[in-house]
Amino acid sequence: MQQFDAIWINANIATMTDNGEPYGAIENGVLAVKDGVIAFVGRRGQLPDFDPTVTPLHDVQGQWLLPGFIDCHTHLIYGGNRANEFEMRLNGASYQQIAAAGGGIKATVAATRVASHQQLFELAKERLNTLLAQGVSTVEIKSGYGLDLATEQKILEVAAELDEHQPAAVIKTFLGAHALPVEYADNADDYIDAVCQMLPKLHAGKLVDAVDVFCEGLGFSVSQCRKVFATARALGLPVKAHAEQLSNLGGSSLVAEFNGLSADHIEFLDEAGVAAMAKAGTVAVLLPGAYYFLRETRLPPVDLLRQYGVPMAVATDLNPGTSPLCSLPLMLNMACTFFRLTPEEALLGVTRNAAAALGLTDRGILTAGMRADFARYAICQPAELCYQFGVNQLKQLIIKGKTVIG
Amino acid sequence: MQQFDAIWINANIATMTDNGEPYGAIENGVLAVKDGVIAFVGRRGQLPDFDPTVTPLHDVQGQWLLPGFIDCHTHLIYGGNRANEFEMRLNGASYQQIAAAGGGIKATVAATRVASHQQLFELAKERLNTLLAQGVSTVEIKSGYGLDLATEQKILEVAAELDEHQPAAVIKTFLGAHALPVEYADNADDYIDAVCQMLPKLHAGKLVDAVDVFCEGLGFSVSQCRKVFATARALGLPVKAHAEQLSNLGGSSLVAEFNGLSADHIEFLDEAGVAAMAKAGTVAVLLPGAYYFLRETRLPPVDLLRQYGVPMAVATDLNPGTSPLCSLPLMLNMACTFFRLTPEEALLGVTRNAAAALGLTDRGILTAGMRADFARYAICQPAELCYQFGVNQLKQLIIKGKTVIG
Repeated sequence: MQQFDAIWINANIATMTDNGEPYGAIENGVLAVKDGVIAFVGRRGQLPDFDPTVTPLHDVQGQWLLPGFIDCHTHLIYGGNRANEFEMRLNGASYQQIAAAGGGIKATVAATRVASHQQLFELAKERLNTLLAQGVSTVEIKSGYGLDLATEQKILEVAAELDEHQPAAVIKTFLGAHALPVEYADNADDYIDAVCQMLPKLHAGKLVDAVDVFCEGLGFSVSQCRKVFATARALGLPVKAHAEQLSNLGGSSLVAEFNGLSADHIEFLDEAGVAAMAKAGTVAVLLPGAYYFLRETRLPPVDLLRQYGVPMAVATDLNPGTSPLCSLPLMLNMACTFFRLTPEEALLGVTRNAAAALGLTDRGILTAGMRADFARYAICQPAELCYQFGVNQLKQLIIKGKTVIG
Repeated sequence: MQQFDAIWINANIATMTDNGEPYGAIENGVLAVKDGVIAFVGRRGQLPDFDPTVTPLHDVQGQWLLPGFIDCHTHLIYGGNRANEFEMRLNGASYQQIAAAGGGIKATVAATRVASHQQLFELAKERLNTLLAQGVSTVEIKSGYGLDLATEQKILEVAAELDEHQPAAVIKTFLGAHALPVEYADNADDYIDAVCQMLPKLHAGKLVDAVDVFCEGLGFSVSQCRKVFATARALGLPVKAHAEQLSNLGGSSLVAEFNGLSADHIEFLDEAGVAAMAKAGTVAVLLPGAYYFLRETRLPPVDLLRQYGVPMAVATDLNPGTSPLCSLPLMLNMACTFFRLTPEEALLGVTRNAAAALGLTDRGILTAGMRADFARYAICQPAELCYQFGVNQLKQLIIKGKTVIG
């Protein structure tokens, strides 16, 4: 007689595994949880014997279970907002005028520097709760609005506190090489040295799960990013990059060279870069919110990514400058609408492939041994989660075996 | 001594009137309600004397009050969904294959015909509650998924019941001329005659506030629409049209000729049409959700509309085929992002101009004598409601003077 903490029965289960069915589906299945881990997924007939008098049964009545969503690319800890420059721009102001009025990333850095730990925590928690309410159980959060050691540390400490004090798991990424701070104007190499000096200190404080860079004309060169990556790898930290968003500098190939977790944005990625990513097992993170908000027209090379078997993830990129859109389900719709992902690809992008983009091997699919992070939806088919937006079909969210919604 | 039912103080009030300030703003103002109507809006010093011992005071502490949002174009009563064809299309199926599989509007008509009144009510109520939770206090709902008298009546009766049994006001629009039902294949003129026969019956049942048509190659010709409009006007009902969405047939000018309330979509509207609308006082209803979901590239003539002073409204077009997006705040963001409306124009589009698109003169702005439909938001400036999406900043929603949220 096996012991379970709880069992979900009469469930359609999108395991998101390669079991030969679309969505890795198991129709009319059973999912059992023990000690925060999935103990069984499969047909009712194969479920080991258990004591029904002591095991809570959830009769799902044909609703769908999916893995908890993973938002693998966010910048959700920041002070202030950029509504003012949004409005100025729509009223005809030029980028120069907006910059002169203190707009752009500098505005967010300034607001984040002056914000207290507690203020940042409260703002970020509201955003995280919004994601959670739509089925997200793991969120990556990048630093990068501090650009000095104290503020980068403050952001990552807020991320660590969020991980501890709310149900979703938080993965912390150091993005010191996000932009050039005013203190280092025209001196990017010196700032990169400073970033490389911040990293061991933050790592010593257990504040860094991965290291990210903004590899772009507006950001840092490939050789500057290489320096940051080398420092990260020397500390045993995995790397990733914002790459090929506005031009093709080769940042994605650099990530691949370091066996990095992901290259993100990648609208301008070419075939050589795709091939390099495929070889290294690097995930392509697609960010349709930024594509939309920046009114980009260059599409990421989805057909090439498919052809080379590069896993595609989808994330919000939640940030105040280029994607102030706090909704992963909206990104599912936009990934299908703009990038022509199939609903199955989009859903793999916020489950299995998003886990891979974070180097997490214990979640993203529903199989025995995985973390019991899953959600129940009142839908007739998984594609509904991509096709429609607004009415929240989430009925229950379970994280580490505990019901946190529903 | 004047009597009020409640007073909101220390409020920033976006009255959306032409008071010379952006958003018709009154900073640090007061709003007082009596008998479901706004009794006073202005400066604290000008508020008539009242008895503070019996009047509830809401200290808003600098938060913003805006008119309740008005979603002036929806089709939110329908059966089924179209996730299946969404998925088929993204997997490469042609329109022919989708049609052969029973897709398109026919699928929605079939599902709506077989659905019971109660089923349609429950589905629609969930959608309406979603809109309500984001600050919507008045919603227009069109029929048009019945295409026979019994089902058109069922839809409009559900709309009437929604009006009665939930807090938001529902405006009922008859859209019999939405598509050609299978029973009338290749016989559009006969179907238009049938529509003209349905209308007096539905009107007699007090089920029709306005009459809409789909004037398009895929829909009905200008002369067919003219026939419907003439029938409507003979009954004293105002008219509007889905017009110039995919081509320039002249539907907007037809609406203007009948002094109609609005022409909706209008991506292909030309200057003559704009001029006709301006002369007739017809509102231009912009529907960025459909533009997005259909991946259109032709933008509505916003500059011409501004130049001629045609009021612009913004709505969800919530429907299962071309805009399955149940969120008016998302449309604010899309109207700015895609159509380059300013935040003030977008917010006028869901308040004052949306009221005009429905012929409602008792709401849409915050002045004495208007319905007390307003919302309180935790924002520092109205543009935030357009700039960011996801975190719901709505803290209180008041409809006819009663707090329904918060």
